[in-house]
Amino acid sequence: MSFKLVIIGGSDAGISAGLRAKELDPECKVTLVVADLFPNYSICGIPFYLSGEVLNWRALAHRTIEELSEAGLSLLLERRVQAIDPVHHRVTVVGEGGQAHSLPYDRLIIATGATSVHPPIVGLDLPGVYPLRFMADAFAVQQHLETRSPRSAVLIGGGYIGMEMADALTRRGLAVTVVEHAASVLKTVDPGFGTRVRDELQCHGIRVETNVRVERIEREGTQLFVTGSNLFHTTAELVLVGVGVEPNSQLARVAEIEVGERGAIRVTRKMETNLPDIYAAGDCVETWHRVLNHPTYLPLGSTAHKQGRIAGENAVGGTREFAGTLGTQVVKVFDLVIARTGLRNEEAARAGFDPFTVETITWDHKVYYPEAREIKIRVTGDRKTGRLLGAQLLGHMHAEIAKRIDIFATALFHGMRVEELNDLDLSYTPPLSNPWDPVQMSAQTWVKSLP
Amino acid sequence: MSFKLVIIGGSDAGISAGLRAKELDPECKVTLVVADLFPNYSICGIPFYLSGEVLNWRALAHRTIEELSEAGLSLLLERRVQAIDPVHHRVTVVGEGGQAHSLPYDRLIIATGATSVHPPIVGLDLPGVYPLRFMADAFAVQQHLETRSPRSAVLIGGGYIGMEMADALTRRGLAVTVVEHAASVLKTVDPGFGTRVRDELQCHGIRVETNVRVERIEREGTQLFVTGSNLFHTTAELVLVGVGVEPNSQLARVAEIEVGERGAIRVTRKMETNLPDIYAAGDCVETWHRVLNHPTYLPLGSTAHKQGRIAGENAVGGTREFAGTLGTQVVKVFDLVIARTGLRNEEAARAGFDPFTVETITWDHKVYYPEAREIKIRVTGDRKTGRLLGAQLLGHMHAEIAKRIDIFATALFHGMRVEELNDLDLSYTPPLSNPWDPVQMSAQTWVKSLP
Repeated sequence: MSFKLVIIGGSDAGISAGLRAKELDPECKVTLVVADLFPNYSICGIPFYLSGEVLNWRALAHRTIEELSEAGLSLLLERRVQAIDPVHHRVTVVGEGGQAHSLPYDRLIIATGATSVHPPIVGLDLPGVYPLRFMADAFAVQQHLETRSPRSAVLIGGGYIGMEMADALTRRGLAVTVVEHAASVLKTVDPGFGTRVRDELQCHGIRVETNVRVERIEREGTQLFVTGSNLFHTTAELVLVGVGVEPNSQLARVAEIEVGERGAIRVTRKMETNLPDIYAAGDCVETWHRVLNHPTYLPLGSTAHKQGRIAGENAVGGTREFAGTLGTQVVKVFDLVIARTGLRNEEAARAGFDPFTVETITWDHKVYYPEAREIKIRVTGDRKTGRLLGAQLLGHMHAEIAKRIDIFATALFHGMRVEELNDLDLSYTPPLSNPWDPVQMSAQTWVKSLP
Repeated sequence: MSFKLVIIGGSDAGISAGLRAKELDPECKVTLVVADLFPNYSICGIPFYLSGEVLNWRALAHRTIEELSEAGLSLLLERRVQAIDPVHHRVTVVGEGGQAHSLPYDRLIIATGATSVHPPIVGLDLPGVYPLRFMADAFAVQQHLETRSPRSAVLIGGGYIGMEMADALTRRGLAVTVVEHAASVLKTVDPGFGTRVRDELQCHGIRVETNVRVERIEREGTQLFVTGSNLFHTTAELVLVGVGVEPNSQLARVAEIEVGERGAIRVTRKMETNLPDIYAAGDCVETWHRVLNHPTYLPLGSTAHKQGRIAGENAVGGTREFAGTLGTQVVKVFDLVIARTGLRNEEAARAGFDPFTVETITWDHKVYYPEAREIKIRVTGDRKTGRLLGAQLLGHMHAEIAKRIDIFATALFHGMRVEELNDLDLSYTPPLSNPWDPVQMSAQTWVKSLP
């Protein structure tokens, strides 16, 4: 009898786990229970499908079903796990028709992901109002776009998905309104950066309303009336709701698997749950934060891949530990790229650091060479120890913002002090950087500005 | 009497040293003896001035003379130090007219840079044949281009300057031939990459001759006849010679300052020479290599800035140590960017490692998003320890090659193992990366390919 690994979920964490397990133990039998027909889809790519930049939704698959099968993964598509029986090491699987069967496991990995938060808005279930999380959501919106040809859209939520969809639907010719309940959009970065993003949206004709909490959506014909706090009201022919996600941990809870931060499954750094032989990974779990040194809830595709790989490795006998997230994130909005890693000032203060944040504006490369672009860099470090705590970058899509945040992330991973960034031997040629890379120039400014 | 710091040289290392000294000790009197009229010029920018991309040569100044003066630096322009008297702490300075005077110092920093190597070629002194190192060289070539309107050029040397000048003169409309004595151009990277660079040159109409040692240049009217080994012969109206540089350490040698690797001034990691109160930095010194763990000669602008900053800090009482070079380099040739950090396979083998190198070809971002570009990554790691030893990258100028090599450089700085690159929390969004960044995908390929 070969070793049986069952994985619940076929998105980033689940597939990474399965592939890693097969890589290390080709004999092991890996079965994935996948709720829909779209295992291993890049749901981060949905905005680019809806913008028309990705013409065929099938291109969003990281790997095809055939490739997954060839890699040795058995996929049970359109099935759901109804219950986990940790005592007898079995899960109950049900298909679309409702018929149930029992599947034994030696090790189980829960990778059930996250679901869209449903905010307290009246009318969320009206036709023309969509969440945006799964491929099914993408198909529904695409169908709406193709068959109804809406001329306008309201996006509820000014976070990553809101920014990307504002860009996407503008490209597609719709008049877009973004409604955010906080004081600025993209509130995962400092307000000054949020303001710059708002400008970028407005430059492209997008209406941006902040400090507005949407309360009600009503429908008359093809028109949706959206109203909210501060006398906000508008009409549109499409409404997308993207106000965040929450861990899909119900199944685990019922099986008495412990949950923690925001209801996410509690795991060790080996991705073990509290129950023997059951691991969990991805958007359904708590994530160890390397700077905070405690668990947090930070569901990201890049993290899901890492955690899945570790869960897969450990499920077949490995002992690898998750090194921790830094919350590194990047988003492109039109030609602007905004990125962050680590902690912002207020997050660092809350965590007990003595943070100090300085903004530097510099050029991405020697200004004498054509097309030099301004980069804004906000560095947060600890006043007492000089330790780097986090960084935020904003600049043009050709200013290597994404990989510059990764220099900070790699430095942060190693607990470097801000001043020590100057010791890094970074690449320089006038068309691409400065003798001191902007990363280092911002570090020098931080050190000089220390009170 | 205030503390007197004298700096010989006004390029990257000298200016960085002076600025840092003033920053830490505003009372100290800093005098720089500068051989020409162009302190703090970005000589790395010369190819972009000669290409016409930089219209005004003054733009090549990192800072103007006024800015340097405002920062408190006293500049003695068009003066040379003729001798150092370490016993009496004085240097002899001569001006253009030959008049000498003596300048006392409490601390001295030698930052005399490097000069072009003169290869054993007959006819190097003919009109129309130029080295390319200093601003004066740039002016001479520019004048030749403007007044003689040459239609063709031969570039002797297929290194960084050769590649950049091939690009530059092609943009300017000249027919360009590159002659390299080795088997491939850009021999600082592996031959496969060199071949790709050669293709890029040839695509732009450039003739590339390898395995040719130029022996003789002769002149008839405006024509220069260039002949060499393997029956090589061609004519051109401009010849540029760029076959490398050597440390300008003669002055130091005469003062009995020790030299080492390739005649470069021997320094501690605090940038001290063997003589008391005399520091040295930049292209005239040996450079500590962080992976090799011994000194090497690797003259680069980015390193000169770092070493100068440290020499300046220590000259006014600091105790900072140079963290070491990794030999991180990047060059842009037309739309192609080529970068390296650390050791290549043969270099690592020579240094006693047990190296293993694997090439990965991947996309810079999710292939479903428009304009995905192929990146080639060569990772070198140690078979026994798994430690990362070096990396080489090649790809499109918008594929964030330069800052991706910097992720490797930062990892290398910290002595990471190749497998550990997968623990880094790098940024991801489909238009800019993959859930596993190409850096990490190449690490995974390396680990999987280990024999």
